[in-house]
Amino acid sequence: MPLIRSWVASANDPETAFPLNNLPYGVFSVGDDAPRCGVAIGDMILDMAAVEEAGLVDLGEPALFVMPFWNEVMELGPEAWADLRARLTALLAEGAAGEAELQPMLVPMAEADLHLPFVVAEYTDFYAGRHHATNVGTMFRGAENALPPNWLHIPIGYNGRASSVVVSGTDIRRPWGQLKGPNDDLPRFAPSARFDLELEMGAIVGRASDGPITVTEADDAIFGYVLLNDWSARDIQAWEYQPLGPFQAKATATTISPWIVTKAALEPFRVKAPAREFALLDHLKDAGPMLYDIALEVTLAPEGQAPSTIARTNYREMYYSAAQQLAHHSTAGCPMSVGDLLGSGTISGPEKDQRGSLLELSWGGKEPLTLETGETRSFLADGDTLALSGHAQGDGYRIGFGPCSGTLLPALDDPYAR
Amino acid sequence: MPLIRSWVASANDPETAFPLNNLPYGVFSVGDDAPRCGVAIGDMILDMAAVEEAGLVDLGEPALFVMPFWNEVMELGPEAWADLRARLTALLAEGAAGEAELQPMLVPMAEADLHLPFVVAEYTDFYAGRHHATNVGTMFRGAENALPPNWLHIPIGYNGRASSVVVSGTDIRRPWGQLKGPNDDLPRFAPSARFDLELEMGAIVGRASDGPITVTEADDAIFGYVLLNDWSARDIQAWEYQPLGPFQAKATATTISPWIVTKAALEPFRVKAPAREFALLDHLKDAGPMLYDIALEVTLAPEGQAPSTIARTNYREMYYSAAQQLAHHSTAGCPMSVGDLLGSGTISGPEKDQRGSLLELSWGGKEPLTLETGETRSFLADGDTLALSGHAQGDGYRIGFGPCSGTLLPALDDPYAR
Repeated sequence: MPLIRSWVASANDPETAFPLNNLPYGVFSVGDDAPRCGVAIGDMILDMAAVEEAGLVDLGEPALFVMPFWNEVMELGPEAWADLRARLTALLAEGAAGEAELQPMLVPMAEADLHLPFVVAEYTDFYAGRHHATNVGTMFRGAENALPPNWLHIPIGYNGRASSVVVSGTDIRRPWGQLKGPNDDLPRFAPSARFDLELEMGAIVGRASDGPITVTEADDAIFGYVLLNDWSARDIQAWEYQPLGPFQAKATATTISPWIVTKAALEPFRVKAPAREFALLDHLKDAGPMLYDIALEVTLAPEGQAPSTIARTNYREMYYSAAQQLAHHSTAGCPMSVGDLLGSGTISGPEKDQRGSLLELSWGGKEPLTLETGETRSFLADGDTLALSGHAQGDGYRIGFGPCSGTLLPALDDPYAR
Repeated sequence: MPLIRSWVASANDPETAFPLNNLPYGVFSVGDDAPRCGVAIGDMILDMAAVEEAGLVDLGEPALFVMPFWNEVMELGPEAWADLRARLTALLAEGAAGEAELQPMLVPMAEADLHLPFVVAEYTDFYAGRHHATNVGTMFRGAENALPPNWLHIPIGYNGRASSVVVSGTDIRRPWGQLKGPNDDLPRFAPSARFDLELEMGAIVGRASDGPITVTEADDAIFGYVLLNDWSARDIQAWEYQPLGPFQAKATATTISPWIVTKAALEPFRVKAPAREFALLDHLKDAGPMLYDIALEVTLAPEGQAPSTIARTNYREMYYSAAQQLAHHSTAGCPMSVGDLLGSGTISGPEKDQRGSLLELSWGGKEPLTLETGETRSFLADGDTLALSGHAQGDGYRIGFGPCSGTLLPALDDPYAR
């Protein structure tokens, strides 16, 4: 599929993240206005509350877009999702009749504040990238026991904390936690010294379910995708994670990009999962290409300095698709809700500079990374700004995700010394 | 404190769960009426929507009690909680002037349907009973490695799934899952054959926080307590839980009792935590007696047969209080929300008949339990009804929790054979 040209000139730039082929959904505000739904097009945001009020879009329910979240649109289901996308494409296409009426409903993105695009119902994080799991497993358990025995049979996941999900641009506060080094007799309470990123994609559930669903049904239930950084305190994690998994290590924050890129926009970029070492059981069987060819990049900028690219990889490196993760999530009868967010797990490629976490990039701190500024990093330093970016490359256009960044603030003074 | 006598005669019965000293909060409906807030008193429910409409209770906000949840009342904070309790006590006390006006606002509990009493924001389950952790650890890792090294230093917890929390009386469907026995070459997909209960208490967070809080602040933030059964598929858990903890094993359902017993009602029953083997670090230090003397019991009734008591224990057996769990939950900056539910972890006493799970009672299936009917159980059978009960014993009165029960339905036909 080639670029679909728009009367919004900036949307026809082959480098824009937001051509008419994309049409991602966000929530924005300007000045003190109430946050409301918007659609990114080139360097502008189409104010969907205004479009709705003018009667130019009608999904059969009133006041959908004046809300500061897309959950109510998701609730309407896949037919409504397709109708909305078709309608927006028609309204914004080159030569569309309504250009003059719509023009005043465009807001320059540079003037807008972006908010979380949906209410996160619950958040689940997976561990479904094989290179990442192998790297981490090798560091923690040795090369022979790198992959846990279940790993090639089920997408390993754990429940995270929805309340800690924040939108790109939110500052992140270095956490305190209980830590115990391998040579310490007793644990101590201190700021995390091994604070890390995890490069992931997030899938957003758009249809509720109340029992086991198939991989195909799961794929149908996914509304769209975002970039996701699952900030991780490795030293808190090392002490707490046995036997019930990560808890406070992952509770500080998870950053997502502000635009929901719809599954529809990503259709041309579907790719197959890798060859299976063991045949997957029926409830997880591949049912078509359900991964996506999305180029991903991580940059790290020390305070006041230029960013260095520290990793480049691709979402197609995953072993399990989001659809397989969602199907697995439902097997025991777990009710899934509109607005559930599923983190893919850290996405690392096979090469050293394709690793999606500092834990892997610095090999647990043993091989510090040298930035373009000459500084080195094993884990994140106070003031560092970490940014993820990603796009699918089409024929003369890109489907981009917008920014997914955060700056690490120093730890608070001891919160219990009072 | 002695019994506070009420003009509702059944509330003065020394055996009732709901004397005037209790005043627990629930959500009820009668017939096709919309669910709304109610207060249990003896064998009646006071219809709080009617009380509010009559202007007999006023917390400064309109339409609080016509809602099918108590979250909005919780949002008002501890002063409002105390005002409401004082007002209800005055209205329902023996000799109160308003008896004639209130009488028609009482609904027989036997005629009402009870619903979840609050919207569960997020659900966290802990592992904070020492006898339980020792028993399970001994079975899985041997007696020398029973308690993980971190166990005596932090309340180990993991995030659960709020969408799976149901009210007492909801049927539970035996789940399917991926299973692999120790002698199997490959996993298979089958109904769980080791489906179990976990006897727990649930603490409900009534005040939001957005950074680390102390144990005292955490205790102040707790609104009340419920009984909680964290249904667990042990065979799913054994295969999936390494390295990131339980996931689908705990996703089928968690049952809670329908009445929120307030912290205020439990004040006379506070007891100290046990002696500490290692001094707790500052963020977890005991700050007063924060456990409660609550007698707990588990019964199991095979389909169509009488219940057998299979365990008796007490909430005071916990090593960590809910306040310590909540404080720990907040250490890394995790935002806590009104309506968060914290499961205590399985409550087992030191004796064999004080164990809060079949896993422990049947020692992993090696020592099946004989019921009073003569039947044996290692894990739950289809048709079994499992019921938790609990009360604090006062001087001539009890603070009860109401029922926390569920019946296990047979697994569905293979959900993927279609």
